[in-house]
Amino acid sequence: VPAFTLAELARRVGGEVEGDGALRLEGVAPLEDAGPAEISFLANKKYRRAFEASRAGAVVVERDADVPPGRAVLRAESAYLAFAKISTLFHPPREALPEVSPLAAVHPTATVDPSAQVMPLASIAAGARVGARTIVFPGAQLGEDARVGEDCLVYQNVVVRERCVVGDRVILQPGCVVGSDGFGFALDMEGEGKGPRHYKVPQAGIVVIEDDVEVGANSCVDRATLGVTRIGRGAKIDNLVQIAHNVEVGPLSILASQVGIAGSTKLGMGVVAWGQAGIVGHVTIGDRATINAQAGVGHDLEPGARVAGSPATPDVAWARNTAVFNRLTEMRRELRELRAEVARLREKEGKGS
Amino acid sequence: VPAFTLAELARRVGGEVEGDGALRLEGVAPLEDAGPAEISFLANKKYRRAFEASRAGAVVVERDADVPPGRAVLRAESAYLAFAKISTLFHPPREALPEVSPLAAVHPTATVDPSAQVMPLASIAAGARVGARTIVFPGAQLGEDARVGEDCLVYQNVVVRERCVVGDRVILQPGCVVGSDGFGFALDMEGEGKGPRHYKVPQAGIVVIEDDVEVGANSCVDRATLGVTRIGRGAKIDNLVQIAHNVEVGPLSILASQVGIAGSTKLGMGVVAWGQAGIVGHVTIGDRATINAQAGVGHDLEPGARVAGSPATPDVAWARNTAVFNRLTEMRRELRELRAEVARLREKEGKGS
Amino acid sequence: VPAFTLAELARRVGGEVEGDGALRLEGVAPLEDAGPAEISFLANKKYRRAFEASRAGAVVVERDADVPPGRAVLRAESAYLAFAKISTLFHPPREALPEVSPLAAVHPTATVDPSAQVMPLASIAAGARVGARTIVFPGAQLGEDARVGEDCLVYQNVVVRERCVVGDRVILQPGCVVGSDGFGFALDMEGEGKGPRHYKVPQAGIVVIEDDVEVGANSCVDRATLGVTRIGRGAKIDNLVQIAHNVEVGPLSILASQVGIAGSTKLGMGVVAWGQAGIVGHVTIGDRATINAQAGVGHDLEPGARVAGSPATPDVAWARNTAVFNRLTEMRRELRELRAEVARLREKEGKGS
Repeated sequence: VPAFTLAELARRVGGEVEGDGALRLEGVAPLEDAGPAEISFLANKKYRRAFEASRAGAVVVERDADVPPGRAVLRAESAYLAFAKISTLFHPPREALPEVSPLAAVHPTATVDPSAQVMPLASIAAGARVGARTIVFPGAQLGEDARVGEDCLVYQNVVVRERCVVGDRVILQPGCVVGSDGFGFALDMEGEGKGPRHYKVPQAGIVVIEDDVEVGANSCVDRATLGVTRIGRGAKIDNLVQIAHNVEVGPLSILASQVGIAGSTKLGMGVVAWGQAGIVGHVTIGDRATINAQAGVGHDLEPGARVAGSPATPDVAWARNTAVFNRLTEMRRELRELRAEVARLREKEGKGS
Repeated sequence: VPAFTLAELARRVGGEVEGDGALRLEGVAPLEDAGPAEISFLANKKYRRAFEASRAGAVVVERDADVPPGRAVLRAESAYLAFAKISTLFHPPREALPEVSPLAAVHPTATVDPSAQVMPLASIAAGARVGARTIVFPGAQLGEDARVGEDCLVYQNVVVRERCVVGDRVILQPGCVVGSDGFGFALDMEGEGKGPRHYKVPQAGIVVIEDDVEVGANSCVDRATLGVTRIGRGAKIDNLVQIAHNVEVGPLSILASQVGIAGSTKLGMGVVAWGQAGIVGHVTIGDRATINAQAGVGHDLEPGARVAGSPATPDVAWARNTAVFNRLTEMRRELRELRAEVARLREKEGKGS
Repeated sequence: VPAFTLAELARRVGGEVEGDGALRLEGVAPLEDAGPAEISFLANKKYRRAFEASRAGAVVVERDADVPPGRAVLRAESAYLAFAKISTLFHPPREALPEVSPLAAVHPTATVDPSAQVMPLASIAAGARVGARTIVFPGAQLGEDARVGEDCLVYQNVVVRERCVVGDRVILQPGCVVGSDGFGFALDMEGEGKGPRHYKVPQAGIVVIEDDVEVGANSCVDRATLGVTRIGRGAKIDNLVQIAHNVEVGPLSILASQVGIAGSTKLGMGVVAWGQAGIVGHVTIGDRATINAQAGVGHDLEPGARVAGSPATPDVAWARNTAVFNRLTEMRRELRELRAEVARLREKEGKGS
């Protein structure tokens, strides 16, 4: 078990100590669970009561946080980032134990870096390459000529199909699929005399996953019809996300769980799409656009756009319109009353004239 | 092939026979397919015509059901439950054939109960434990120190990552993932001098799946950032469901296919969420709340609440407002006509004065 | 590398050449990437500028397309279909290398056609059958008595559970699951004296996937409770799609990514459902109905119906109502102004009378 003094933690993550810098800390824990040898984190003013009740030895807080007196705290520019770094000190990333399991199926023409680890029941097909210090877990399958870079984690039952390219420091969570065929068919009314059919358009391209990307469990990234489906550097993709053929996801984008992006759509840098949002094919989403949960985007978005709803509209307008929607029944009643009143006025007017 | 008399079935599931108790039944079938040696089930008054046309030897019905004369029926308090139990008699759960396949990869420090079955191409990592009578199917991967209890079915290509805990009588359908990393990143504008990045927050917690839970095919349950993501006793989760880090799903809850629950949200007991519904993070859903298909829940729900729509509102109000939505074009026209009429009245009034 | 003259391509796919039929072509590429030895495709008038700028040696266009002078073109009745066929000439489907890998787990009672290929770490359980020229990739698991027909591609980590039947020329993309248990439980308030539980209804049926179907990565097709869940001939299913127990998907239907279809629903022939759409259980969707992305279908649809929204309504009405929704705030303001105006008129009238 690693242990650090509070002062040491502050030095490592770039914060300032208030209280006993010599305090020895052996772990991280949420405010409500932490004991005197653990350091915790105040995420949010909302949790101030939890802070007061906490038995945590120390707490990471924002620079300007108002904290109860007598508490050991570590103040940092970004408390969440500092806490994440501290947590990494206590939970260092898994390191490869250089070995190719005799129970793995590694083709003779595959290249596995001597510092990499290939666990039992993983397969590395002909011509595939595994970079330095990468770990390939049981059940992960790399297709022919697939390439996985350095310092990657290829978790259990991941599939990287033939010729796809995965960069360095990429994490592929269990069950995700890289390089499945895109969904492309041409309607063939004749079907060579046998009647209509959907003729499969060859999906001859690949997927490129750039450095520092993470792809979530059971997510799917389809290979391009021709060319490349690209996940840009540092993008983070959650579980059960669908990325269709020829999509480009810009660097540092964030796609939450169950998001779906249809074919050939281009996302700029730092785009954020929240859970279950969908984007149609062949559109362009500008840098730093934010798409609300469950939104349905049917057209291009400008850089920095913030949208919600299905079909998606600017989020502020959507929130207002939604508030009215929730009073529609009342509004209809008012409209009816008004019609009756106007009819009465008109009738009276008619009589009057 | 097992066979039972109608009287025997009634005795076993607690119902009453009308007609020939000595009737020998060899299987269960839907009303439209059942033959004279099969027992069927009247789900719903709507299917009464199918009942009349059915060739089924016997039919399970509710205590007070009105049935055609001359039919052998088994009346039960809950016909559906009685039918389910009868079906179980004809389709008993699969039993483990105690054996560890020589084609499985079982680490020497793993513990597999002698009554358990580990099939070919399954892996059981160091320190992992498999309980009595549990079946681990081909391609299932249990990580280091993972624990699976007794009488479980761990179907093909399931992943249970390191240290996660699965209770007794749990069914994990093919391809589901237990213990993938939660989706947590801290924005790091400096990135150690290389520019902005999403810094990975270690996902150091685990998943606990309590007894009698079922998790559907290709569903994902993320491990906690710290602490536990918990699926409560007897909860049933359908396919392609996303459970994020630190979520708690209460006992006996039902989550239909493609539901997504974001981080740290707590579901009470017996919560029901229908297909494609989503719940944001950090909220609390009261016991027995019901969430309609495709609803988007953005805030806490009271026990027993029934909601629909996105954003979710009480389902009765939502249904009414939706009905108005479907006449919005008409309503706008009425509003325009009314404006014209009022303008006319005002103008006339202006002239009049 | 295969190569063809333009005239040869035209002959093979049934089009007409304008320009140099002797032009030698070595590949296909998008307009913007194609070089002089490649043939490209004009999808859409919208891309005419890309056509003009393209360095492609030849371009496939519609019969009546207006093209820049001096270009070699191949005119075809359906340009997209012709291009797909040309692409297939350059990217012929993968062929089985007849072999059962010694690293596969093939039960002695399984039947693998001598022309089929079973790769390392695939499992073929007792009684299962693999047809001629089919390829079973690493990590694919066929359960007991499962049957896969001829000329199929069963990609990495696919699961076909026991007794399910897959036809000829079927493609199962990585990680898809065929034959997982349907989601069926009967509420049991007693639970044999231990309190309420969800009693599992045995899922004793199977899945039948007819010829020429494709199922996408990580999609799930549940087995029937009793009887058959059926995917009709030539239907195409994208990634992460959920097909519940006892569903029938009609021939030639198209289900885009993340679509969900609840239990016992029947889809006719040629139904199209776009991304993230959902259909409730126990309804019937007529032939050639089209369901928009994210729509929620709660009732039967007539043949040829076109719906959108949640709950789904005819798409034209939905588009109009949505347009009004996006001006609801303005509409409410107008209504308020009108009420004030009418109140003023009434008051005046009151004074006047």
